[in-house]
Amino acid sequence: MIIIGELINSTRKAIADAIKAGDRATIQKIAKDQAEAGAHYIDVNAGSFQDREIEYLTWLVEAVQEVVELPCCLDSPKPAAIEAALKVHKGIPMVNSISLEKERREKLLPVVIGKDLKVVALCMSDSGMPRTAEDRIRIADELIHLLLDHQVKLENIYVDPLVQPVATDQTFGREFLKSVEQIMSRFPAIHTICGLSNVSFGLPLRKFLNRTFMAMAIAKGLDTAILDPLDKPMMACVLAAEALAGRDKYCMNFIKSYRGGKLEV
Amino acid sequence: MIIIGELINSTRKAIADAIKAGDRATIQKIAKDQAEAGAHYIDVNAGSFQDREIEYLTWLVEAVQEVVELPCCLDSPKPAAIEAALKVHKGIPMVNSISLEKERREKLLPVVIGKDLKVVALCMSDSGMPRTAEDRIRIADELIHLLLDHQVKLENIYVDPLVQPVATDQTFGREFLKSVEQIMSRFPAIHTICGLSNVSFGLPLRKFLNRTFMAMAIAKGLDTAILDPLDKPMMACVLAAEALAGRDKYCMNFIKSYRGGKLEV
Repeated sequence: MIIIGELINSTRKAIADAIKAGDRATIQKIAKDQAEAGAHYIDVNAGSFQDREIEYLTWLVEAVQEVVELPCCLDSPKPAAIEAALKVHKGIPMVNSISLEKERREKLLPVVIGKDLKVVALCMSDSGMPRTAEDRIRIADELIHLLLDHQVKLENIYVDPLVQPVATDQTFGREFLKSVEQIMSRFPAIHTICGLSNVSFGLPLRKFLNRTFMAMAIAKGLDTAILDPLDKPMMACVLAAEALAGRDKYCMNFIKSYRGGKLEV
Repeated sequence: MIIIGELINSTRKAIADAIKAGDRATIQKIAKDQAEAGAHYIDVNAGSFQDREIEYLTWLVEAVQEVVELPCCLDSPKPAAIEAALKVHKGIPMVNSISLEKERREKLLPVVIGKDLKVVALCMSDSGMPRTAEDRIRIADELIHLLLDHQVKLENIYVDPLVQPVATDQTFGREFLKSVEQIMSRFPAIHTICGLSNVSFGLPLRKFLNRTFMAMAIAKGLDTAILDPLDKPMMACVLAAEALAGRDKYCMNFIKSYRGGKLEV
């Protein structure tokens, strides 16, 4: 499982405060903690600051990469912010995200093509949020072909089928899971990604529901997730599901984590 | 989810002791506890007593049905024991199980055909345990057609694809899950069933692995499980996975169980 550590996000008050105060130490500690807990990318988001997003996103990338040897996931729909962040980023970043929405697509495409990066293809179009697996696959298909036409390789595309709350519509979880499976089987070498906490919106025991949904998504082939790597029960669930899905050779990761006292269930 | 309460099994010492002693009260308490915890069938197994299995299985059915208004799952490969138990059973029982093994198949088939019952079709043949999804589907296909040829309806067939330990072969979980999905999609109205605790054999944190695997199997379409309904974290996992898989209208079962203080996570 490719883990994107989600904590450095300006929608969280502590992060917004640290950004405003130029508090490098706080950001860097959270980056290091996530790296130690198993993140493969550190998500950076400064989207709460409309006017200063470009400056802040760049600052976040530099602050993070000063202390961890990991790429960032540049989390912004704004082409100018992505472009600026790409200039200072070391290694191969992930851009989150392009979508089928006309404006976003047309402005972001020139920024990502021809560069060595990973790109998240969000299943969203100008007709709004997808409801069914078919909606998602139709958007994914169009986005994937658009990217392929611009020489983005399949293995650099991470499709986000967009998780929606089951409390809003009981079919939303099932349709998401179905789309993960179909995208993974139709496009070998592609990835699927999501931030899955929305699934439990409006329900009790959200963290428990989120980890249960994680195991279900792994069963369907999801291979990348945006999550809090410091959430130990979630990480234990990822490790267990990976072993059970045949993605952990000899179950060694699971066994080693257990022996290291890292599995909190 | 259709839950088969697994606790009244003579391989468990407390049960074997109760059977030998004719201790009806102990058996009946366990039957009632499982019914209250949400079981839809009470499994009865007297297989540890080779010589007296017929007598004991019949006794178990009568003891159980004296106190709960539920059908039993008659858990024996022995046609004579099944036949005797069917004679005293009230309601529509489940028979666990017929398989493709020649002797078992030929002797059990006449016992189950023409009767109003559910039958578990275990994916086992004379060539031994299946390893791949394809192995399982080949056996399932043959068993299903055999039963259909004898006028057993598809909705009365519960295919058990046979769970094997991932510690033995890391592909075993994945292949099981794949077979569940394919059987459910090929044969509409059919059921899939399993006792899944074998999946974690040889690994630490077995109960945690078992519940994680349960969520994954529900994502793939498993609709019946042989489990301990008194295992509260397992039952919470079943309820969560059902809500997330779109099988719990308005998530009402999940919410009601939460409000009733029944979800232990």
